[in-house]
Amino acid sequence: MNHPEWIRKEFRGLSQSLGFHFVSKEEIENRMTRVRAGMEQEGVEALLVIQKMDFFYLTGTTQDGLLFLPSEGKPLLLIRREFERARIESPLGDVVPFKSNRDLPTLIRNHLGRLPKTIGLELDVLPVRDYFRYQELFQEIQFKDASSIFRESRKIKSPFEIGLMKVAGEIGRKTYQEGKRILREGMTEIQFGGLLEAFAKTYGHEGLLRVRSLNYEAYTWHVLSGPNGGMVSQSDSPMGGLGLSPAFPVGGSLKPLKAHEPVLVDFGTCYHGYQTDETRMFSIGKMEQKFVDAYHACREIHDAVLEKTRPGADCEALFLSTLRMAQRLGYGDSYLGPPGLQTRFIGHGIGLELNELPFLAQGQSYPLEEGMTFALEPKIVFPGEGSVGFENTVVVTQGGYEILTPAEMEILEV
Amino acid sequence: MNHPEWIRKEFRGLSQSLGFHFVSKEEIENRMTRVRAGMEQEGVEALLVIQKMDFFYLTGTTQDGLLFLPSEGKPLLLIRREFERARIESPLGDVVPFKSNRDLPTLIRNHLGRLPKTIGLELDVLPVRDYFRYQELFQEIQFKDASSIFRESRKIKSPFEIGLMKVAGEIGRKTYQEGKRILREGMTEIQFGGLLEAFAKTYGHEGLLRVRSLNYEAYTWHVLSGPNGGMVSQSDSPMGGLGLSPAFPVGGSLKPLKAHEPVLVDFGTCYHGYQTDETRMFSIGKMEQKFVDAYHACREIHDAVLEKTRPGADCEALFLSTLRMAQRLGYGDSYLGPPGLQTRFIGHGIGLELNELPFLAQGQSYPLEEGMTFALEPKIVFPGEGSVGFENTVVVTQGGYEILTPAEMEILEV
Repeated sequence: MNHPEWIRKEFRGLSQSLGFHFVSKEEIENRMTRVRAGMEQEGVEALLVIQKMDFFYLTGTTQDGLLFLPSEGKPLLLIRREFERARIESPLGDVVPFKSNRDLPTLIRNHLGRLPKTIGLELDVLPVRDYFRYQELFQEIQFKDASSIFRESRKIKSPFEIGLMKVAGEIGRKTYQEGKRILREGMTEIQFGGLLEAFAKTYGHEGLLRVRSLNYEAYTWHVLSGPNGGMVSQSDSPMGGLGLSPAFPVGGSLKPLKAHEPVLVDFGTCYHGYQTDETRMFSIGKMEQKFVDAYHACREIHDAVLEKTRPGADCEALFLSTLRMAQRLGYGDSYLGPPGLQTRFIGHGIGLELNELPFLAQGQSYPLEEGMTFALEPKIVFPGEGSVGFENTVVVTQGGYEILTPAEMEILEV
Repeated sequence: MNHPEWIRKEFRGLSQSLGFHFVSKEEIENRMTRVRAGMEQEGVEALLVIQKMDFFYLTGTTQDGLLFLPSEGKPLLLIRREFERARIESPLGDVVPFKSNRDLPTLIRNHLGRLPKTIGLELDVLPVRDYFRYQELFQEIQFKDASSIFRESRKIKSPFEIGLMKVAGEIGRKTYQEGKRILREGMTEIQFGGLLEAFAKTYGHEGLLRVRSLNYEAYTWHVLSGPNGGMVSQSDSPMGGLGLSPAFPVGGSLKPLKAHEPVLVDFGTCYHGYQTDETRMFSIGKMEQKFVDAYHACREIHDAVLEKTRPGADCEALFLSTLRMAQRLGYGDSYLGPPGLQTRFIGHGIGLELNELPFLAQGQSYPLEEGMTFALEPKIVFPGEGSVGFENTVVVTQGGYEILTPAEMEILEV
């Protein structure tokens, strides 16, 4: 059979019957309007969109390619592989196959009638070697950093995006429920994490969490029990755990789970590219009172931040207020990590990536806006003993907030 | 409890009791000798090692930090987080905590007695924005691209590295065995993939596969059944499958597995950072003869390449010989993809990353060397119907090769 023909005939029906939602033309147009406002502000005449999540945001497809977006006129979607799927997945009209970056100047000139004077690139992630190649290809063009255009545009989620995050949150809810069903003494941390992942995938979780960084790696098997929970590692997180080796020194390890230990499960879920992040505590039998108390302190801090969550609230002020609260509750030296290793954030924006705007963090003084989504995660760490935490992903609404991660909020004791 | 003190006292014992192997001083010194030979050849006076796997290769740790490696004299390991773990994990002697890149010039000057004139950076992956910052910090220093130094050094594996890959291969063997035990009609592709992953993790698999690229994402749940196997997607692979959404359009989908379909499972396993890659075919009841025949053709091609695998064999010639063989066997139009979408490689180097040297591919004319490891993966694709494949990871030995992925090689029929 001929592949292109088969895809044209079967792909839409086949993929929709298995649960694919395609991004609508209107949704993409709204996003482009936001991005173009940013382009005007930054003085960028066109964007060359390369990074996978920016590309997906503006095209609706993650087939391998590039998007050329001029400040006015039609965008041009260039597809290396696979062309027929991209044409169906993306609502954009001008879709052209292309083989090599060498053809870019000609393709752009044919599309726009000329070459732009300035092009924005994602310099926060684009490798230097690629940048040098673009400079050679477009010797007359001035390149500018377009990273902030994407960060600013993507920080406000549309109802469509929030709808996908709600499905992700629902997958998380079912996954934690399964966790309560299967948790047994003697399972290892990594085994429990792996099984939770398997359940989540069965419900449609995409497995790979995405983060915008060269070296920062996201993963879902962040299952930390007893003393392992009290261990800081390379990640910018209150606790990293032991992990499986010096090559992966975070998350679940081969340590067996024991009765009465705090078992922290920080599990990210992804649906159609959109992620939610949440943390719940498990225990086999009742966990030591010290941890139960600290868990309630985390919930208190979590609830207090949500009380103040609304458009206009200052992100840094929200963070700083939790420091004072933790101090007052008696956790000044264990809140967000042990002394000297305490992280300086209580929330991070989340969507297609795990490190989006806004950050509820030191030095991040700007207001919350309607449609922002963030994960809020107070945690308390006792080195050598364990850690507890509580986390939900929320969206800022006109009147306050809505929780997108509806998993049972009490300690999940079995 | 005091975190640094607890780590100093407990971390080594705790992590070793849970299966951690630390990289020895001798192993790191051998690697540095290789890297320094490359530095001399490229005229680089020092390296600033930033990318996580290059950093791990030369330090034995993936705690967050940088390595400064001068062509002569002692390397300097700079650790952001977490310092005490890095000191234990790495056999390097000079380990210093550091907070900000702004301190780098002073730290390097104190260590070396001066600033070098040239510094090599990983320009194939380093983001442009970071590069600009290094340029500002070190205004007198000339930066050069050090990517090839790492690629060339890392392409030959030591006995220690091969030993870790053998453990990864053994995890794969057990995982496929479990697959045969649990496979049932009606399970979805993604469910089967997720459960295989959960088993692999239980045996010590690290979950995250690593690849050196901005946009190329690796994942383990490449379970493609029936028509989904005949579908090409964005990846440089003969078949991509349907995936779960336009945001993740490769690998397992929510399609239920049916009897008599070919079920292709291409599963990567990772132990202590070292990966092996293998493909086996499953079926529920006997699969259609057409696919059985194609599977045997894949094995024939695989075996024919291994016949010629030894130090000195040319990588491109090995690839080209398989094209002729596929043609002769009657699969010219389906080998490595459908017409127009056929990939141009039959093998890829593998180790800490999935896209290392060597590539058995068009345009890659260089000899195999003793200690190289690569995944060899002939595949045959029938659009609209399905695909089959066979893959092992092998190491080139003095006399030929050794297979590192010992999973049962016949069709895994249940």
